[in-house]
Amino acid sequence: MLFPISQSDIDNAASVLNGRIHRTPILTSEALNERTGARLFFKCENFQKIGAFKARGATYAASTLTDEERTRGFCTHSSGNHGQAVAWAAQQYGVPAYIVMPSNAPEVKKKAVLGYGAEIIECKPTLEARERTLLEVEQRTGAYFLHPFNDLRVITGQATCAKELIEDTEDLDFIIPPVGGGGLAAGSCLSAHYYAPHTQVVGGEPEGADDAFQSLKAGKIIPLVKANTIADGLRTSLGKHTFGILYPLMKRIVLVNDEEIKTAMRLIWERLKIVIEPSCAVPLAVVIKEPDAFRGKNIGLILTGGNLDLDSWRF
Amino acid sequence: MLFPISQSDIDNAASVLNGRIHRTPILTSEALNERTGARLFFKCENFQKIGAFKARGATYAASTLTDEERTRGFCTHSSGNHGQAVAWAAQQYGVPAYIVMPSNAPEVKKKAVLGYGAEIIECKPTLEARERTLLEVEQRTGAYFLHPFNDLRVITGQATCAKELIEDTEDLDFIIPPVGGGGLAAGSCLSAHYYAPHTQVVGGEPEGADDAFQSLKAGKIIPLVKANTIADGLRTSLGKHTFGILYPLMKRIVLVNDEEIKTAMRLIWERLKIVIEPSCAVPLAVVIKEPDAFRGKNIGLILTGGNLDLDSWRF
Repeated sequence: MLFPISQSDIDNAASVLNGRIHRTPILTSEALNERTGARLFFKCENFQKIGAFKARGATYAASTLTDEERTRGFCTHSSGNHGQAVAWAAQQYGVPAYIVMPSNAPEVKKKAVLGYGAEIIECKPTLEARERTLLEVEQRTGAYFLHPFNDLRVITGQATCAKELIEDTEDLDFIIPPVGGGGLAAGSCLSAHYYAPHTQVVGGEPEGADDAFQSLKAGKIIPLVKANTIADGLRTSLGKHTFGILYPLMKRIVLVNDEEIKTAMRLIWERLKIVIEPSCAVPLAVVIKEPDAFRGKNIGLILTGGNLDLDSWRF
Repeated sequence: MLFPISQSDIDNAASVLNGRIHRTPILTSEALNERTGARLFFKCENFQKIGAFKARGATYAASTLTDEERTRGFCTHSSGNHGQAVAWAAQQYGVPAYIVMPSNAPEVKKKAVLGYGAEIIECKPTLEARERTLLEVEQRTGAYFLHPFNDLRVITGQATCAKELIEDTEDLDFIIPPVGGGGLAAGSCLSAHYYAPHTQVVGGEPEGADDAFQSLKAGKIIPLVKANTIADGLRTSLGKHTFGILYPLMKRIVLVNDEEIKTAMRLIWERLKIVIEPSCAVPLAVVIKEPDAFRGKNIGLILTGGNLDLDSWRF
């Protein structure tokens, strides 16, 4: 099967990103290996620039534009990390950024976006309000729209994360990314397909935002009607491009509930001593939920980000 | 001046510990460098075995004993991390451990001690009760007492932390450890003295447990009468050995209050995305408190541990 993103596209993204963003470390924990009976390799994108993997896709997509396209700046809509990533990428190029954010986005993410010198345009927390507000911003400013996930260049950038994970470990049986809009998940599937064809990519998704699970089952995009999960980074529906890659490549998505996510999140804080946001705990929750499927296996888990409101978090 | 611990003692400890414990990573943060105007190198002992630098001293001290001395196990008193370290070291040697802990020790530290197979003996949270209970345990079990800090072999083990920090960075102007009983601080002074004589070691201590500050000023040990600080790892007086090393080598201790410690702790969680306990935030609080003293300097900050009750912590 021919995919719209080739191996050399991902190689190219990796070399563009080299030096602009971090090659994040991979952590292991004997305690978590014992608890799960598997060998776990945590790819720590919480240590990435802007605190999340989204720096990859936004930076790579921005690099592919012409000077003419970049000059009036970038805009996007995002509940958080992609907004920071676009703001940061614009700052790197010295151009303005306009970020449409729902009024209920975490305070820490808004502050960070402002910290990168971007302008925030608030809207109601609905997809329709987001898209309408973004259109207004595009028309008013002429800024270039960088989509949070449904953009082939963004997906190509996110694919570099699993590529590094594959290069820095040996013989992974599984890679588990969380699935939101599907940019990271689709990129992970492509990197496994090209660089480690024996490695299976299993998605992790919250029960309260199970649109990707439903979509792969139905063979068509089933949009998320109402999200109900603490994993605020995963309250998004798949797009045409991410579905088109995930449908043939991702054989399986495992659903986990909020309690399972919290338990996994706490284990990661306590055992790895790192700060991660709820969305990133989904892959470990998947491994704990299905011990028989993962026992004795080498598993790469992508910890997607570490941006959360410490004030409001309670275990 | 001749010290009771030589450079070759520390070299020897480093080679004994090599492979038994982690060579912990050093993290940096552009945001924290900008905020402080200095170049900060965070030595992450929160990623150490048992989640704290105490693994160094306990493991090295245990390694210096004869089989005969080790056979009836180890005992100690500790409000937390040293207890875990002794329990873990005993587990490595397959001998029992008996840990005297004050009844108000953090739950997470008690659980961890039990997790390493040790027996906990609770006592009232006073120094006198600790020492009396420990004596009873020693007499009953014949276990070998490993002191939390006032033991030359323990200090030698702790010295390996600053040694690594010096080796893994370039031209540090300062190393800042927090000061509790003084084991890490004394070890850091010795390592700077031997391996980087131009690097100055500045201690950080909570205002509410300022016995080391008072002791260095008075030129004799002034015991802590009553501790009042959130930095639970630093509520300890200096001992004869730690004072004897700190007095000639540590030129300066900076005091910080609990608000300053909390601000620094939060910055580390938010910016470095790592979990640290309050005691470890003291060095960053020192740098923030005295911007003029540290601006433009290369500073190694020792993050001592990451064991805290997530349930009870609130920012």
